Amino acid sequence: MVTPENQSERVVRVPLGERSYDVVVGAGLLMGLGPRLAQVAGRGGRAFLVADSGVPVESLDVSAASLQHAGFAVTRAVITPSERDKSLTTVETLLGRVARSRHERGEPIVALGGGVVCDIAGFAAAIYRRGVPVVQCPTTLLAMVDASVGGKTGVNLEVSASGATSDDHLKKNMVGVFHQPSLVVCDVNLLGSLPHDELLSGMAECVKHGLIGADWGDPGLLEWTRKSIQRAMSLDSEALVELVARNVAIKAAVVGEDEREQGATGRGRMALNAGHTVGHAIETMHCRAVYADGATGPPGLKHGQAVGLGLIAEIACAERLGVARAGLAREVAGLLASIGLPVKAAGMPPAKKIAEAMLDDKKTSGGRIRLAVPTGDGHCRVVEAPSSQALTAAIEAIRA
Amino acid sequence: MVTPENQSERVVRVPLGERSYDVVVGAGLLMGLGPRLAQVAGRGGRAFLVADSGVPVESLDVSAASLQHAGFAVTRAVITPSERDKSLTTVETLLGRVARSRHERGEPIVALGGGVVCDIAGFAAAIYRRGVPVVQCPTTLLAMVDASVGGKTGVNLEVSASGATSDDHLKKNMVGVFHQPSLVVCDVNLLGSLPHDELLSGMAECVKHGLIGADWGDPGLLEWTRKSIQRAMSLDSEALVELVARNVAIKAAVVGEDEREQGATGRGRMALNAGHTVGHAIETMHCRAVYADGATGPPGLKHGQAVGLGLIAEIACAERLGVARAGLAREVAGLLASIGLPVKAAGMPPAKKIAEAMLDDKKTSGGRIRLAVPTGDGHCRVVEAPSSQALTAAIEAIRA
Repeated sequence: MVTPENQSERVVRVPLGERSYDVVVGAGLLMGLGPRLAQVAGRGGRAFLVADSGVPVESLDVSAASLQHAGFAVTRAVITPSERDKSLTTVETLLGRVARSRHERGEPIVALGGGVVCDIAGFAAAIYRRGVPVVQCPTTLLAMVDASVGGKTGVNLEVSASGATSDDHLKKNMVGVFHQPSLVVCDVNLLGSLPHDELLSGMAECVKHGLIGADWGDPGLLEWTRKSIQRAMSLDSEALVELVARNVAIKAAVVGEDEREQGATGRGRMALNAGHTVGHAIETMHCRAVYADGATGPPGLKHGQAVGLGLIAEIACAERLGVARAGLAREVAGLLASIGLPVKAAGMPPAKKIAEAMLDDKKTSGGRIRLAVPTGDGHCRVVEAPSSQALTAAIEAIRA
Repeated sequence: MVTPENQSERVVRVPLGERSYDVVVGAGLLMGLGPRLAQVAGRGGRAFLVADSGVPVESLDVSAASLQHAGFAVTRAVITPSERDKSLTTVETLLGRVARSRHERGEPIVALGGGVVCDIAGFAAAIYRRGVPVVQCPTTLLAMVDASVGGKTGVNLEVSASGATSDDHLKKNMVGVFHQPSLVVCDVNLLGSLPHDELLSGMAECVKHGLIGADWGDPGLLEWTRKSIQRAMSLDSEALVELVARNVAIKAAVVGEDEREQGATGRGRMALNAGHTVGHAIETMHCRAVYADGATGPPGLKHGQAVGLGLIAEIACAERLGVARAGLAREVAGLLASIGLPVKAAGMPPAKKIAEAMLDDKKTSGGRIRLAVPTGDGHCRVVEAPSSQALTAAIEAIRA
């Protein structure tokens, strides 16, 4: 088996004691997936490969072939990566197939896909026989810099009083456990086949990381992002490897300090939630993205679009409360706009309704809204129970 | 709120560092459930009460009233305790109701029922919002001395190649996680309403604990069990409290040493698996219990019956291999018979087919059968990959 030469390969260690693992970032890494897996899971057993239906079949074939050459008996399953199918029902079906393959304790599940598939496969691995190893091979920028690192796994929950189903009743990531992967392999070549919108979505998380970089060992990240983002967007391998590796390093630093997101002070993984409290609330609300040039997107926001808008809104809220530097929301909107992300949303419900949805966010504590906001100097602070005026100002800052 | 005076109340501490918890054993404890819960979960929040449809409605009412008097906002759900309904589908439905009650992080789920409900509720609590506290109130002897302590939670998995469903394709406890409870409340008054067969089922685990008692701090347990089992069977409160407390203490000692069942030497929770490798295999095989007097039960073995038979078979296997004292299997059969448990099974498939089913047991490693067997002196040893002759001898020892 030939492991591709790749001079720009980068390895980020996620420091979690006996649960520590490597995130390998490079171009063409799937060709060497098998030997890498053998290093963490041993040779000669079974590997269950869960692929995203959106992943090019060649990438799936390359991965499976590499695993087989390394001695693994491979069983494949393909999953549709929709939020509606990200459910316990899908996990039950998937695990039925895993069990039929006589998959045993210690044998890995390998996820090849975007965030939805990484979350589902990670959760399935966490609960099968009370836990088997999972290897994450994220195929989207968002999954590389966010979902694949940190051990958050899980699915959505349908919550409908009437029995009727609609996206309004889908509680995202309401069900899950922490289960750290044994290895994460980020092959940036996969990003070339990604729809442009998907690439943009991941960039919102990169902006968020840049905004908190000083707290997590990379004070120059925001400036580097400003300068290099166009090279990354044009799929320059070197820029993509650096983008992914530096953003993974931020997440790894946060996770290493606060594995189970119990930090209450704004350090800890609360910091990674910046933009997400408003973001989650508006993501399911059938709004339309509105860009800096006034163009309007189709109904529904992508996760990264919602997070970008959430960042602007939450920073606007923090500005009004004197927590963030005045003008920061406008600057962030400018950076998001330069990437091609929306800066406003059309069709949002009244601020009060959005605030109610924020109360359902996993971060609520005692029925109060809690926001983690960048302050403008690379740091992050927690805002507890912001006033309704401040919340309204936040929402109006992104209302088209 | 009146907490009942109960001079025979016993508290067993399960020693797991920051995950340590108490198992309280006594008569009439449900009346004081609310104040006890408030001690571990704080006052004033929500409590989601998951009850077994087999639990008398008065017990459910008493529990809910006590929780409400202690300041908890109580939502109830009732679950049918069948192995077929012990599924991810049931967990999904249950968690939909939990989410609709706006249950937040830190708020407890309270299980009131037998092992199936304790396992389902524990698993639901483990995965809701990535983990909320669970309080186990087991209502059967089996659940008190086994399922409620140790943090094993989970559900069964339907594994059918054809899509057809049958109990043959139900893989028991194939899905789950470890999630220690915050408190376990064993009210022995509940055992009075238990069908006699259910009480008998729990006794098989007590015999198992007696057989390994010397290893876990109670060398006199087997002898006490021989002498006192009739008093316990006649529902004498004092005998029941001592029976439950001493058996819980065995399980607590094992769990405290080997929380995640990773011991490979026979100490560790492998010891608790004695009788269960054969037991699990024959439990789903539509055999009939055959008693010492030759009477035959209805089709299907209860868990405790299967474990009792599994103990006899596995010890017979160990005897043949020279690991257990000669004659031990016969002695254990005698004790089980004196309690009223079966000593043989009618309608079992050939030994080879049972051995194949044992390969599916969660304890298999590398495709080999592994048995944890009592040796006859209060200790336990692990038998790796027993010969097919020894396995056949084991099965034939319990074939009617």
